[in-house]
Amino acid sequence: MAITLEDLAKHLELSVFGDAWVEITHVAPLDKARDGALAFLTNRHYRRYLATTGASAVILTADDLPFCRTNALVSPNPALTYSRAVRLLTPEVSLAAGIHPSAVVSPLAKIDPSSRIGAQVVVDEAVVVEAGCDVGPGSYLARGAWIGEGTRLVARVFIGHDVKVGRNCLIQPGAAIGGDGFGFARDQQAWERIPQLGTVRIGDRVEIGSNTCIDRGALEDTIIEEGVKLDNLIQIGHNVRIGAHTIVAGSTGIAGSTKIGACCQIGGMVGIVGHIEIADHVTITGRSMVARSIHTPGIYSGGMPSDHAARWRRNTARFRQLDEMADRLHIIEKTLEKD
Amino acid sequence: MAITLEDLAKHLELSVFGDAWVEITHVAPLDKARDGALAFLTNRHYRRYLATTGASAVILTADDLPFCRTNALVSPNPALTYSRAVRLLTPEVSLAAGIHPSAVVSPLAKIDPSSRIGAQVVVDEAVVVEAGCDVGPGSYLARGAWIGEGTRLVARVFIGHDVKVGRNCLIQPGAAIGGDGFGFARDQQAWERIPQLGTVRIGDRVEIGSNTCIDRGALEDTIIEEGVKLDNLIQIGHNVRIGAHTIVAGSTGIAGSTKIGACCQIGGMVGIVGHIEIADHVTITGRSMVARSIHTPGIYSGGMPSDHAARWRRNTARFRQLDEMADRLHIIEKTLEKD
Amino acid sequence: MAITLEDLAKHLELSVFGDAWVEITHVAPLDKARDGALAFLTNRHYRRYLATTGASAVILTADDLPFCRTNALVSPNPALTYSRAVRLLTPEVSLAAGIHPSAVVSPLAKIDPSSRIGAQVVVDEAVVVEAGCDVGPGSYLARGAWIGEGTRLVARVFIGHDVKVGRNCLIQPGAAIGGDGFGFARDQQAWERIPQLGTVRIGDRVEIGSNTCIDRGALEDTIIEEGVKLDNLIQIGHNVRIGAHTIVAGSTGIAGSTKIGACCQIGGMVGIVGHIEIADHVTITGRSMVARSIHTPGIYSGGMPSDHAARWRRNTARFRQLDEMADRLHIIEKTLEKD
Repeated sequence: MAITLEDLAKHLELSVFGDAWVEITHVAPLDKARDGALAFLTNRHYRRYLATTGASAVILTADDLPFCRTNALVSPNPALTYSRAVRLLTPEVSLAAGIHPSAVVSPLAKIDPSSRIGAQVVVDEAVVVEAGCDVGPGSYLARGAWIGEGTRLVARVFIGHDVKVGRNCLIQPGAAIGGDGFGFARDQQAWERIPQLGTVRIGDRVEIGSNTCIDRGALEDTIIEEGVKLDNLIQIGHNVRIGAHTIVAGSTGIAGSTKIGACCQIGGMVGIVGHIEIADHVTITGRSMVARSIHTPGIYSGGMPSDHAARWRRNTARFRQLDEMADRLHIIEKTLEKD
Repeated sequence: MAITLEDLAKHLELSVFGDAWVEITHVAPLDKARDGALAFLTNRHYRRYLATTGASAVILTADDLPFCRTNALVSPNPALTYSRAVRLLTPEVSLAAGIHPSAVVSPLAKIDPSSRIGAQVVVDEAVVVEAGCDVGPGSYLARGAWIGEGTRLVARVFIGHDVKVGRNCLIQPGAAIGGDGFGFARDQQAWERIPQLGTVRIGDRVEIGSNTCIDRGALEDTIIEEGVKLDNLIQIGHNVRIGAHTIVAGSTGIAGSTKIGACCQIGGMVGIVGHIEIADHVTITGRSMVARSIHTPGIYSGGMPSDHAARWRRNTARFRQLDEMADRLHIIEKTLEKD
Repeated sequence: MAITLEDLAKHLELSVFGDAWVEITHVAPLDKARDGALAFLTNRHYRRYLATTGASAVILTADDLPFCRTNALVSPNPALTYSRAVRLLTPEVSLAAGIHPSAVVSPLAKIDPSSRIGAQVVVDEAVVVEAGCDVGPGSYLARGAWIGEGTRLVARVFIGHDVKVGRNCLIQPGAAIGGDGFGFARDQQAWERIPQLGTVRIGDRVEIGSNTCIDRGALEDTIIEEGVKLDNLIQIGHNVRIGAHTIVAGSTGIAGSTKIGACCQIGGMVGIVGHIEIADHVTITGRSMVARSIHTPGIYSGGMPSDHAARWRRNTARFRQLDEMADRLHIIEKTLEKD
């Protein structure tokens, strides 16, 4: 597929600087781009590549334009423009609708004829798959699951019974949505499972990463609001609620009944304890442990940066004496005051 | 399904306070319960809802009874009573026994006729599935696996060759039980796999969460004793042994050859190094790193609570100087002693 | 299978000490070995078992030989020798080549007739499976995937479109190779997916653990070089590159665009931020957070060892005041200097 820079600019409602008739055929990284390539610049660190890039055009901000020696598309948000240009340059493969003969679909499920049910998929009774969905190979939709219009399950996804997935969601391989929550009552020294009667409700345009797990609620539902983006290997406990447009990086865990606000940014490997609340617009940097509610927007951290092993060992040994050190410091101050 | 509070109390061997003839049809959260609902109270924090709940009855302790304005079931363990009441109110769907025509079952496997083998399941030779099991869609039981009576594999579960799973276990979607242990011998700069000849043995009433992994042993077996409860995304290395009734929260990792006692409670995202021992009745709070054996029951912690990013940054910078600070403190003390 | 110690030694090119005619039938742990067993000793801690072992022979170093009372194979690398002896004693089950009738294989895929495609596998068009591969039950190879000679996918493995897997790799159950990278552009308060156009390229003799995830690159490819060993539940972001023979323990996460050198050893639950570089021959101990590039080989740590909960609480409370403590310490020093 080839498109002139002018046509691309028209679609994206942006201005061209330079030769509007140059043909764009693909995208490429700024430092490796050749003829026909569209590149983009979002990080000032790479501005130096503007001098040498072989790209036919570069998407950049007005600030970076003076440094550009090739053609340019000026955008207030180059990453977003790039994302949309890619979609124009690589039209999506149209879905081969229909139910693969190897799929096992209950006659009591309702599958829109415009959707694809892939090979080896299993669909139980009372499942609804709306229009334009793609249920990838090896997925399993349990009784009563509901998949909204235009949603794609890449492959081998588990959707538990009665789970509701919104429209235009994207769920990566191995995700498990709607396993039982981890709730037990003590019975002497043993633990007895508390039946998990809630389900999971997922809003529109939510993305869920590979092998991420979202447990169903105990009595009420676990809720992931619209536009939430979850990376791989994330653990979401029962009755958690995540507000709209919050983004969570990989290997993070959120324990049961915690409520997270809208538009939060949560780094990788963060651990958030159960039964707390986090306000809207909170940023939590990677590797933090959040043990209390956060009521004020802002940036919070909790990851200890690593060090040379020998120095680290000495410092962690001292950490075990830190409270005692603080007491000693206080005694010295008292002594000096008296002098 | 409806049942009088009196009948419910009789089944549960508890006493009714209030109207024994009220009809219970379902369970609901205390603050949202309406007519026909049974609620429960375990957390004093929610005692205030007793004044306004619309529940037809509440399960609570004798201590909370004076605050209750509706009917009550008094129990020494409300969570356990609730759990059992739910089972009475929601009779389990009886299993449609038999092998789904899409399943691939070796003629050399032994499947009890009372068990269900779901759609797209694969069962290799020499597998035994005892009575009353439910092997959910897309699961795979490799050669020689053994599944004890009444055990349920929800869906897409992997059971490696020769793995033994006990009775009345519950294994959530995507769990991988019996992958190869992570054992290598150095060969110059490369690593050569050491064959993993052991297997995994899982006791009765064990629960295993979604996408949790338990590796097979190197020479001897990895052992999960009866009643152990494992949450989602947990990593259990080869030759680990976990004692009876120990409970482990999500995203925790236990490295190879570590032995954990009985009745331990291990929080989420805990990391336990290999080749150590942890005594019975040890509690480890979330996010701890356990690097040495623990011989004494008690509570152990290791998670650093997060803070405002700016203050956190300053404090972690100082942490790099902590050993030096301790030395300076010592010098000051010596100086003052001399004075 | 039985073999004399002499024959075993000949195959392994090692010397026998003691009775060369003794028959070896299996391997066993040093402390539990009986007649016919071959054991091995790599850890001085277990040297005491040499006095009492019932093994017919023990693999050990020349240093440990004087303490051995049974027959011995002396090796400079007992673990490697043991690994190879096991392979001699337990000949691999020969693969039943061919495509299982329940598998769904595109007529446009190219499957070498010496390979096995297991039950319920799905293979899309333009996939290539080279000679001697074993694609285990429930796996899915998307369009254009390429599996090198002798590679084994144990079961339920996801290989995304156009992913290249090298020769003699071993991929454990549930691994997801080639899901979409986690890349989004902001669009007002929402996030819009940036199409992930790269793929994943995996070298020869790579091993990937259960439920581990490796995301495809955004524009260029994610690269795992030859001989890399990845444990279970590891998260590898888009555009990461891991150098040859690097080994990574379980539950570790490596964020996008980070480059890791060759021959590194990375412990469990390590978190490595995105866009940094780690040199060759770097060791990172378990639970470290690596937030900056590491340019020098060596050992780096970042895991805080846990403590009794009460002391831990006191010390972490003081940690919040550490920067202030440092200032107070400095003031005291100034005061004393003046005196």
